[in-house]
Amino acid sequence: MKIGIIGGGQLARMLILAGYPLGLDFTVLDPAPDACAAPLCDHLCAPYDDPAALARLAEECEVITYEFENVSLEALEKLAGKCAIYPPLKALAESRDRLREKTLFQSLEIPTTRFLAIDRFEELETAPRILGWPFLLKTRRFGYDGKGQHLIRHRQDMETAWQALQGQPLIGESFIPFQREVSIIGVRNRQGDIAFYPLSENVHKQGILHISRSRAGDSQTETARALARRLMEHLDYVGVLALEMFELNGRLLANEMAPRVHNSGHWTIEGAETSQFENHLRAILGLPLGETKALQHTAMVNFIGVLPEPADVLEQPGAHLHIYGKAERPGRKVGHATVRAPDSKTLEIRLHQLLALLP
Amino acid sequence: MKIGIIGGGQLARMLILAGYPLGLDFTVLDPAPDACAAPLCDHLCAPYDDPAALARLAEECEVITYEFENVSLEALEKLAGKCAIYPPLKALAESRDRLREKTLFQSLEIPTTRFLAIDRFEELETAPRILGWPFLLKTRRFGYDGKGQHLIRHRQDMETAWQALQGQPLIGESFIPFQREVSIIGVRNRQGDIAFYPLSENVHKQGILHISRSRAGDSQTETARALARRLMEHLDYVGVLALEMFELNGRLLANEMAPRVHNSGHWTIEGAETSQFENHLRAILGLPLGETKALQHTAMVNFIGVLPEPADVLEQPGAHLHIYGKAERPGRKVGHATVRAPDSKTLEIRLHQLLALLP
Repeated sequence: MKIGIIGGGQLARMLILAGYPLGLDFTVLDPAPDACAAPLCDHLCAPYDDPAALARLAEECEVITYEFENVSLEALEKLAGKCAIYPPLKALAESRDRLREKTLFQSLEIPTTRFLAIDRFEELETAPRILGWPFLLKTRRFGYDGKGQHLIRHRQDMETAWQALQGQPLIGESFIPFQREVSIIGVRNRQGDIAFYPLSENVHKQGILHISRSRAGDSQTETARALARRLMEHLDYVGVLALEMFELNGRLLANEMAPRVHNSGHWTIEGAETSQFENHLRAILGLPLGETKALQHTAMVNFIGVLPEPADVLEQPGAHLHIYGKAERPGRKVGHATVRAPDSKTLEIRLHQLLALLP
Repeated sequence: MKIGIIGGGQLARMLILAGYPLGLDFTVLDPAPDACAAPLCDHLCAPYDDPAALARLAEECEVITYEFENVSLEALEKLAGKCAIYPPLKALAESRDRLREKTLFQSLEIPTTRFLAIDRFEELETAPRILGWPFLLKTRRFGYDGKGQHLIRHRQDMETAWQALQGQPLIGESFIPFQREVSIIGVRNRQGDIAFYPLSENVHKQGILHISRSRAGDSQTETARALARRLMEHLDYVGVLALEMFELNGRLLANEMAPRVHNSGHWTIEGAETSQFENHLRAILGLPLGETKALQHTAMVNFIGVLPEPADVLEQPGAHLHIYGKAERPGRKVGHATVRAPDSKTLEIRLHQLLALLP
């Protein structure tokens, strides 16, 4: 059975590595000739919204999935009826626009930050009345890893932010002075069965995920799961979904959702009974979900821009290396390492040793 | 960095799946257009001993390895100096001929069964004087999964066995009424560091491996490791090596060695900190070896000839599926499942449930 993936980056690569043992084959659609998933499978080298390439993908694959949100909804809608597409396009439509996403959170009574649409400079000027100070001005679409957003601390920041972002639909959001960032990775299969991984606790650095720790037994687990469950059931969701949240004074506030496997779930490859990648494939194929329980205490460190020396990582106890096969470039995710330990104290020591290897 | 693998079967496939996260790329040499590792990497579709294909493999790869012993030693020797080949050809030469292998065991004082070369029918007739009854008549080369061997119980069996096997160099071996079969998987890297996995306890069915159980803490562990260490050091070995042994009245008798990743080590993918596949790659690249300790109690079941229904396996607690992407055919290894459990009693229950799913 063949799976089509729109996007041939590291998420596709890790889906493929998880999928071969299930007896699956893969085609990725990616315009980059050196897409890092391409050496592992068939590669349609064409734009993501190329109608002929998409039609071919639908023809040769049983199911199509995607590894990022900024895929053309319009192009995918044309394939409906020709091939199953999961996660459902409704989830894609809601999640790729920050305004629709936050409005959905609100309608489902999922606590979120205050927000409002900003289409004119005058709306930016009056935004602080609702959002308070400071606040964030963001593009509604195409933002990732902290791109397309400006923090507005004073009235003087407005002009610069407006110059940088105007011309695109924008959203203003209250800035949350959170105590920590967490995410919950859930999975729902075609039959409607749902499973959740332990909570991930995340640390970002310059807008890019830096460290995730698995937090089995975290006191916010049940709250986070209940919110994600509400989303998944409302969307009749199929696949892995990540919900990122801020914790502020004991409350969880939803920041964004990702209708796909997620960087804060990479620790599941070694740290959980079944990885998020395998469970995404099981879900979209209508197979029974795999167990999601943590095996040990686990953390993940992203390699941003440059890789450490592989031998240095490989000799660390409990460390597992994941190189994505991408050229090194500032700000680019080029790999990660997972580290496991039998207890949280040993984990922190090992994590510290791993972090010391980063260039 | 690119690794060349001679043979594109399931062992190559699992090496490749373990190697991408290390940032490696692969080319397999296999004459079968549908070699099951081919969809995952570059494929040279040519005979294993094709000089042009081998020269190309040596040119584009940093290191060449192999997934089976019946590779042409003569063809590989011509590549020496052009490209590193691991495990070393000396190990290949010793292991692919049962007579040389057992003679080597003897010279290293590794206990083995009684044996003798049989080249003429008269030698077969006098063999029982040395081997006793019953005994085995085997081809010295090209035997695997119980192929190329006959059990001789009575003088009347001799003619049939001779008719079937004559014309090839043969060996006679005493039949061992063993209590159990075990194997030890060791790994030695280019620097000479050695690591061993917990002992595997193996059950064969019609000459083909059926079940392997990891036996951390088995009383024979240290004996088995000492024997394998002697072999690896003598051969200046690099890579994973498997040594299969019979246990007879508390003694270990070496049966055969395999200079490669081994079916009785498949449980290490989920059952050990680092899999035998990753450790083979680390070893041949001169990287630090990964930890070999068992994570839980683990067993592996081979799927011979036909696959069970994937969904049935996937819904078993602790079970992990490995489909090789090969057409189903009687006697052919088409996949395996690993099952993990926190204790040995639960493991036996889970293994029993898994075995009940076999067609």
